[in-house]
Amino acid sequence: MDKTDLTALYREYIACLNRQDWSALGRWVDEDVRYNGRRVGLSGYRAMLEKDFREIPDLQFHVHLLVADASTLASRLDFACTPAGEFMGLPVEGRRVTFSENVFYEFQDGRIRAVWSVIDKAAIEAQL
Amino acid sequence: MDKTDLTALYREYIACLNRQDWSALGRWVDEDVRYNGRRVGLSGYRAMLEKDFREIPDLQFHVHLLVADASTLASRLDFACTPAGEFMGLPVEGRRVTFSENVFYEFQDGRIRAVWSVIDKAAIEAQL
Repeated sequence: MDKTDLTALYREYIACLNRQDWSALGRWVDEDVRYNGRRVGLSGYRAMLEKDFREIPDLQFHVHLLVADASTLASRLDFACTPAGEFMGLPVEGRRVTFSENVFYEFQDGRIRAVWSVIDKAAIEAQL
Repeated sequence: MDKTDLTALYREYIACLNRQDWSALGRWVDEDVRYNGRRVGLSGYRAMLEKDFREIPDLQFHVHLLVADASTLASRLDFACTPAGEFMGLPVEGRRVTFSENVFYEFQDGRIRAVWSVIDKAAIEAQL
């Protein structure tokens, strides 16, 4: 798959997340997906995302930077949202916070097979 | 500049950091470099790195993942090191910790012009 295809595929995946279309998630995410080195599988990955949207009702993913080669894509995602209670162990409690996530995706046969994510917790702390 | 050149350039930059060759830093870093949206300039960037090595005497940068296009490069850097005192506001105090940094670099004329970095603070916390 060339990098243009990967970028297009990724933007479809982000649109899927933003409309919380969980039944379609498997079009972009592999059954055996790994998250930060641990196998969570498609169902675990979906559960993680559903939990994020429960805890952050106005969650939306905005792509700030995107770079890809034939099998790996890196994205900087920007968030501006209001977690209802705790988020990453921090008492956000309905305050509006802005932060970023820098994340790598390894693709195999057109699906996300591994995710390496870091969320900017220090940026959230600085806003509380 | 094509992405192969950018990747090669970046590996030279990482080697420069690992040997703490601060007088050479300007070969890879622009005079007006920005860090997470703020202009720090080459001297501020160098001061930041020197401080990191003062606080973490055994600091070494290991590239885990790398993806680049013609002007942007993303890298996942892995660290295994022993910060002497506090690190990111956490009382590490000489314990050995492992963590990652996911970071984007925007290049202009062969030099790093902007850096968007997120360090996995939550991973460090989980080890204390």
